[in-house]
Amino acid sequence: MAGGVGAARFLQGLVRVLPEENVTVIVNTGDDIELHGLRISPDIDIVTYTLADIVDEEKGWGIKGDTFHCLEFLKRYGYEAWFNLGDMDLATHISRTRLLREGLRLSEVTDRHRRALGVKARILPMTDDRFETYVKTNAGKMHFQEYLVKRGSTDQVLGVCFEGAEEAKPSQGVLESIESSDGIIVCPSNPIVSIGTILSVGGIREALQEASARIVGISPIVGGRPVKGPADKLMEGLGLEVSAHAVADLYKDFLDAFIIDNADSGECGRIEGLGIDVIATNTVMRSMLDKISLAEAALKALRMRG
Amino acid sequence: MAGGVGAARFLQGLVRVLPEENVTVIVNTGDDIELHGLRISPDIDIVTYTLADIVDEEKGWGIKGDTFHCLEFLKRYGYEAWFNLGDMDLATHISRTRLLREGLRLSEVTDRHRRALGVKARILPMTDDRFETYVKTNAGKMHFQEYLVKRGSTDQVLGVCFEGAEEAKPSQGVLESIESSDGIIVCPSNPIVSIGTILSVGGIREALQEASARIVGISPIVGGRPVKGPADKLMEGLGLEVSAHAVADLYKDFLDAFIIDNADSGECGRIEGLGIDVIATNTVMRSMLDKISLAEAALKALRMRG
Repeated sequence: MAGGVGAARFLQGLVRVLPEENVTVIVNTGDDIELHGLRISPDIDIVTYTLADIVDEEKGWGIKGDTFHCLEFLKRYGYEAWFNLGDMDLATHISRTRLLREGLRLSEVTDRHRRALGVKARILPMTDDRFETYVKTNAGKMHFQEYLVKRGSTDQVLGVCFEGAEEAKPSQGVLESIESSDGIIVCPSNPIVSIGTILSVGGIREALQEASARIVGISPIVGGRPVKGPADKLMEGLGLEVSAHAVADLYKDFLDAFIIDNADSGECGRIEGLGIDVIATNTVMRSMLDKISLAEAALKALRMRG
Repeated sequence: MAGGVGAARFLQGLVRVLPEENVTVIVNTGDDIELHGLRISPDIDIVTYTLADIVDEEKGWGIKGDTFHCLEFLKRYGYEAWFNLGDMDLATHISRTRLLREGLRLSEVTDRHRRALGVKARILPMTDDRFETYVKTNAGKMHFQEYLVKRGSTDQVLGVCFEGAEEAKPSQGVLESIESSDGIIVCPSNPIVSIGTILSVGGIREALQEASARIVGISPIVGGRPVKGPADKLMEGLGLEVSAHAVADLYKDFLDAFIIDNADSGECGRIEGLGIDVIATNTVMRSMLDKISLAEAALKALRMRG
């Protein structure tokens, strides 16, 4: 189960210690947004580009060596250009928009794209249905991308709401992959707007609770702070503590083991108190070696018997 | 009245001898096509980019210095990429597609674009309605762009048909601009698929016949051959002679004067026999000076009293 950048980095390691074709990634679509008439699926694209080895590693999103000539020209026509859309990247959005209009489901489009880019892992959008994450802030309610990108996560968070969550059904293969999995990993992604969204889609949380496979999570919080992104602001806004323990608590109804950073090893006892095995290791992924080590730790935790 | 490249070159000269804001260009939309889910209006864009001084002069279409990174990536997704779409150019198509979906008319979109790019001349699509030029060939019936670009005008032309012509109405301002004009110029464009299309839109031909202003045409045929494009193949396919005279004959019900190339001065008598004044000059526009001289010749012909 994956959000964007953090998950994609972890997956880079995972597909080096597991046959890539054995991996199924269930990806958050709550960040999806229509911009300039094009359907953008940021997390799906980050995961796909990363596994295709074409991601811009420095930024963590977009395509290596991409240019922004189209976006610059859109500005000349007076459009807001706060969301970066590279020229190569646009091909993905143009294709997705066209295929969706032709009646394909998002999961079919995603599958077509990842195959075209040579990705062997299955990539499943959490849902094919409309699902949009909005953030309630002191400056009003806004789409998550507007909160994150346009306004740089500077507004005070008062709440989060998932539009469409009540009607959204898991896309085809999601529940089946959970049921038949040999091991489930919750990637180090934002527990509210990346994993929380996936968990809110009808039946997914229940499938996890009933899964026969072990479920291992990786904390996105290191030393009381998110490695990347606004998880701290969102958690605080929802009245949660910003800690590995608080994340584990959100997952406690289905999690068997939780991998936390050495920096948070003081929380081991509290997390074990939730009935969850804890592994403390280095979770900050700077090099490929870091990613591979973390993937190995996750596989080891999946094989543990609690 | 204008098609694409030939007309745009002529207009470059015209706006140097006339205040640009006094010029209204009625542009062919029969070449319009939807590709990759985007609405492409080739002639409108060529005219707009040229008057905005951002056209790729060498090619005659597209934007100077544009890149093709998006198109290259679309190929990776398996799409046909026979129609060149530059990255900056794509901003125009993305914007047009979006605005049309939001309910704007093509004429409103065109006006917004040309203003954003600093073009003072009014640019009017011949129609806001669906109008598509198809070519019947020995290889089957195909969209004009497919005939021209994808297959390089190599198929034998058996006929031409204008889909939507019977229902298409002139866009707002077209008939009014013809009625109130001080002088009307038929640009050196393809008489079948650029000017013929415009003439087929309901009421335009009649408005020209009744116009109080003089109407001057410029031959796109030089020495029995088109300067550019497949006018010869289309004219032959329709059983027409490929000559300045044959073009004049297509316009004889409304044309007051026709500017032909010196190379075709042998046709003066035949064209005058149609009741049309003839001016022979250099019509091949290689330099800006050529363009300005041709524009001056056209203005002079508008002022002549036949």
